[in-house]
Amino acid sequence: MRWEPGARERLQAAALELFATRGFEQTTTAEIAQSVGLTERTFFRHFSDKREVLFYGQDQFLQAFLGGLHAAPPNASPLEVVACALDSAAAFFPDERRPYSRMRQSVIDKNPALQEREQHKFAGLAVAVAEALRVRGVGEPTATLAAESGATVFGIAFAQWIREGEERSLADIASQVLHELRNLARP
Amino acid sequence: MRWEPGARERLQAAALELFATRGFEQTTTAEIAQSVGLTERTFFRHFSDKREVLFYGQDQFLQAFLGGLHAAPPNASPLEVVACALDSAAAFFPDERRPYSRMRQSVIDKNPALQEREQHKFAGLAVAVAEALRVRGVGEPTATLAAESGATVFGIAFAQWIREGEERSLADIASQVLHELRNLARP
Repeated sequence: MRWEPGARERLQAAALELFATRGFEQTTTAEIAQSVGLTERTFFRHFSDKREVLFYGQDQFLQAFLGGLHAAPPNASPLEVVACALDSAAAFFPDERRPYSRMRQSVIDKNPALQEREQHKFAGLAVAVAEALRVRGVGEPTATLAAESGATVFGIAFAQWIREGEERSLADIASQVLHELRNLARP
Repeated sequence: MRWEPGARERLQAAALELFATRGFEQTTTAEIAQSVGLTERTFFRHFSDKREVLFYGQDQFLQAFLGGLHAAPPNASPLEVVACALDSAAAFFPDERRPYSRMRQSVIDKNPALQEREQHKFAGLAVAVAEALRVRGVGEPTATLAAESGATVFGIAFAQWIREGEERSLADIASQVLHELRNLARP
């Protein structure tokens, strides 16, 4: 087995391009590998299947979210903790990543099974954040409410961030959506 | 084809009993039908597959949620509208339904595919509620935030309602969880 420098990134870029132009279902792992001069065997050294190309990096994203949460000051309110987590998660998506994220979303939007996988990812994020909040001493139902709200804010902000013509950073948008959440709950 | 009075309800009760005791995967539609003296053909007159037995009534639930939303006073804030929707949705689950709901959840908790289907149901609920709020003139991202928060509050309240030993009504629990959401957002 040869070491292929940057193989993962090349496979990822090629896969996304093929998914977007030919369709996810119509693209095979062999085609993805061939399009960048690699073997299917190399593909499977990096990804368990073609779906996982779209969800690679999910663990690092979760760790970014939780990292921000752990870095929040001890006396922060649950929603302030969530704000720290959102900032940290947003840093995971710098502006140069926007075109990739936009194309990825367009592939997911066309495929119900990928949409369910994406929803499952967000549900898992909320469960992990709620657990981390409970470890900080936040009780229920507040921990789950704050965690679910954080996932909702992130989802709304992310959808806005990849909209055509949007130029604000993800962190700025997330901070504005969180502000709207505070307004919403104000009597 | 004979008309079988109460066939749907009998099939539903029998299916749930079998799913809970033998497992969802291990139960066939023929067994469900036979266990209440009906044919598989009768089963398929009522349900498209065994999974749908667990999700029957989903449309009426959505209509209950939206009905409460439409009945909210014109000057209600988005979260007050959601509170009306939650009250109406909670009325769909009177206390005598609690044992059924509890057993249904235990079946879903054991099966990842059923969990994804359930998450998908909640995602669909939030999308429909957001749309109804926009029709009422609520802008974005507030409409989506309020709708997602409503789905979250309902999910947390429902999980508490079916907990062993819980005796409060679903409406009471939902109202308390909504109150916690307001506290959460208070600076």
